Amino acid sequence: MRKIITLSAMLLMCVLSFAQQALWGGAAVISPEIHENNTVSFRLKAPKAVRVQVTGDFLPTQKIKTPYGEFDGPGVADLTEKDGVWEFTTPQPLKSELYSYTFLVDGLKINDPSNVYMIRDVASVTNVFIIGGERADLYKVNKVPHGTVAKVWYNSPTLGMDRRLTVYTPAGYETSGKRYPVFYLLHGMGGDENAWSELGRTAQILDNLIAQGKAKPMIVVMTNGNASQEAAPGESSLGYAPASMQLPKTMEGSFEAAFPDVVNFIDRTYRTLKNKQNRAIAGLSMGGFHSMHISKQYPDMFNYVGLFSAAIMPNKDVKSPIYDNLEAKLKTQFDKKPALYWIAIGKTDFLYQANTDYRKMLDEKGYKYEYFETGEGHIWKNWRIYLSEFAPKLFK
Amino acid sequence: MRKIITLSAMLLMCVLSFAQQALWGGAAVISPEIHENNTVSFRLKAPKAVRVQVTGDFLPTQKIKTPYGEFDGPGVADLTEKDGVWEFTTPQPLKSELYSYTFLVDGLKINDPSNVYMIRDVASVTNVFIIGGERADLYKVNKVPHGTVAKVWYNSPTLGMDRRLTVYTPAGYETSGKRYPVFYLLHGMGGDENAWSELGRTAQILDNLIAQGKAKPMIVVMTNGNASQEAAPGESSLGYAPASMQLPKTMEGSFEAAFPDVVNFIDRTYRTLKNKQNRAIAGLSMGGFHSMHISKQYPDMFNYVGLFSAAIMPNKDVKSPIYDNLEAKLKTQFDKKPALYWIAIGKTDFLYQANTDYRKMLDEKGYKYEYFETGEGHIWKNWRIYLSEFAPKLFK
Repeated sequence: MRKIITLSAMLLMCVLSFAQQALWGGAAVISPEIHENNTVSFRLKAPKAVRVQVTGDFLPTQKIKTPYGEFDGPGVADLTEKDGVWEFTTPQPLKSELYSYTFLVDGLKINDPSNVYMIRDVASVTNVFIIGGERADLYKVNKVPHGTVAKVWYNSPTLGMDRRLTVYTPAGYETSGKRYPVFYLLHGMGGDENAWSELGRTAQILDNLIAQGKAKPMIVVMTNGNASQEAAPGESSLGYAPASMQLPKTMEGSFEAAFPDVVNFIDRTYRTLKNKQNRAIAGLSMGGFHSMHISKQYPDMFNYVGLFSAAIMPNKDVKSPIYDNLEAKLKTQFDKKPALYWIAIGKTDFLYQANTDYRKMLDEKGYKYEYFETGEGHIWKNWRIYLSEFAPKLFK
Repeated sequence: MRKIITLSAMLLMCVLSFAQQALWGGAAVISPEIHENNTVSFRLKAPKAVRVQVTGDFLPTQKIKTPYGEFDGPGVADLTEKDGVWEFTTPQPLKSELYSYTFLVDGLKINDPSNVYMIRDVASVTNVFIIGGERADLYKVNKVPHGTVAKVWYNSPTLGMDRRLTVYTPAGYETSGKRYPVFYLLHGMGGDENAWSELGRTAQILDNLIAQGKAKPMIVVMTNGNASQEAAPGESSLGYAPASMQLPKTMEGSFEAAFPDVVNFIDRTYRTLKNKQNRAIAGLSMGGFHSMHISKQYPDMFNYVGLFSAAIMPNKDVKSPIYDNLEAKLKTQFDKKPALYWIAIGKTDFLYQANTDYRKMLDEKGYKYEYFETGEGHIWKNWRIYLSEFAPKLFK
């Protein structure tokens, strides 16, 4: 070892080396920049662009006209250019929330090259940022004990496949020797076993609620609700297939019929409390549909049920024993008096009327449930709210 | 429940609903398309663009001139436009490998909006795809038993912080009741605890090698080698800070000094074989530097040591007890005859000479090591090769 090379020279060499592989076109500007007053600046270096816009849920929604009616879509704002760098600063401070955004460069959607923090939702990848304070503090990694988030494979004998789950175990699980209750948390159509732990912020919400003493330590199991998939795109033996609305095994009974395979695996693999009193199930949109059907199909399995913006509707054109005799199965379920049947939806959700009709039926039958209504529609903002409201009600 | 809505109508509503949140600007074309003969087409819909290029490690490298010398950089190819859709097809079939790429639209680096499968490396996010066959089959999720990949937090008393690890446990770990050997696997400068499990394909390589009987079932622990970080960008209580070369606690002794905290946590938390015979440590670039220093600092801790493109060099300008008395510590380490001391590097690596000098010193002292040389330089392709060569040599 005769060569003496100083650390700074070596760092320089490392930088150059990265140029070979990792730092192609690194960030030229700071974006997003969250100012002290919670206004936010977005910047993009794009000297040749003619028009640069930003679109995201931090902007006021705008009406989008379609042949099927008018819907709320994300707003769009123009950036202004100076010396090749485009910039937009929100005119008002943003409320505390986790926000998603992308740029549009001459109409082409691109991610922000200065912000490596991105989350995929169905077939879109967006950049995200968090404005802290109030409920959004639950979505942040704070200085509290952290649970473990694991990607775990299980065998489903019913489906004849190995499939992947995301499992949250609370801080201390590994060494406590204790048994824990289990909350099964289901995603919506087009999602997968990554959805709740990423945009849903499950680990952060549970870590924070448990640290505050508001939720009991619990295991949270996040399944993949498309029974034709092993795992999320790119993470299965099928390789990457583009996300699509052609989802062959999502709402035709397969997933619900195979659900006991998941519960059996979890009870065999983790230190769980293996009884109805210590099991909850909830889901968003299609996951709410699944939670409704699974909980009534196996009336001795779950004591807590949550329907978040649930796609509740009878599917008379789908033949599955799961969907037969719905009213009789609901009667059996409610006769056993579940500890909690919780329905939540936003006022502008396209499923609002379907949920109103469902609640009316429950009222007519005298079945007890709790109802929680928010503003806005079928969006992750609401699902994070519902999770942070529902989890504290469990296992008490 | 008087309203009868058919499944197809509901699916339609779901699609519209997604338009609100998840499907902003969904993919318009298929990209990348891997043809049967392993040529690959890249496509981008960008009607207003003047020039669209693709850059990535699937193209022949090109020389990049810098004030510090000439380096190999990724090649660039032009796409051609027809009806607003740009396309490039590789003239030759690609060899089996995991490849990274991005588009350049009028000079602006963008990810492929048709390929949600992306991996971050330091401050860049690139799209990836795999051409299977030969060694690259080890990088794919195959129909074999899968281990668990967990994001786990531990407390480091030495650093006074909670920090995050990625832990791979082999298939069957949860229920086998057995104890396992542990392989500590360290990233390079600018990386973090996600690097090896993402671009490094650790879980896939280990799953496949174990299923083939080529590697022993083992636990793999992937640390964060920057002692000032709790976790990867966006996943710590510090929020998202842009990646940078200003890494205050990477090669100044803190990480190495605190390493026993990691080993103690793992031995306390997992069913490990708690002795030198059943511990390995290896790392790439800076992680090779760390592995060299940690293994000689604690000569009774690791029986297997791997230096992958290691940043081996004495840092006479850094004061840390870790870096003192290097030659005496190496003597102690080699006098104890480690089962394997394995050095691997690529022929064009900027650290090639430093590794040659280090090997010469080992030769002069009569210290035994194995040497493995590949083509090319300081790139993930080599580090995946080194991992898949090194893991089968462990714990036998």
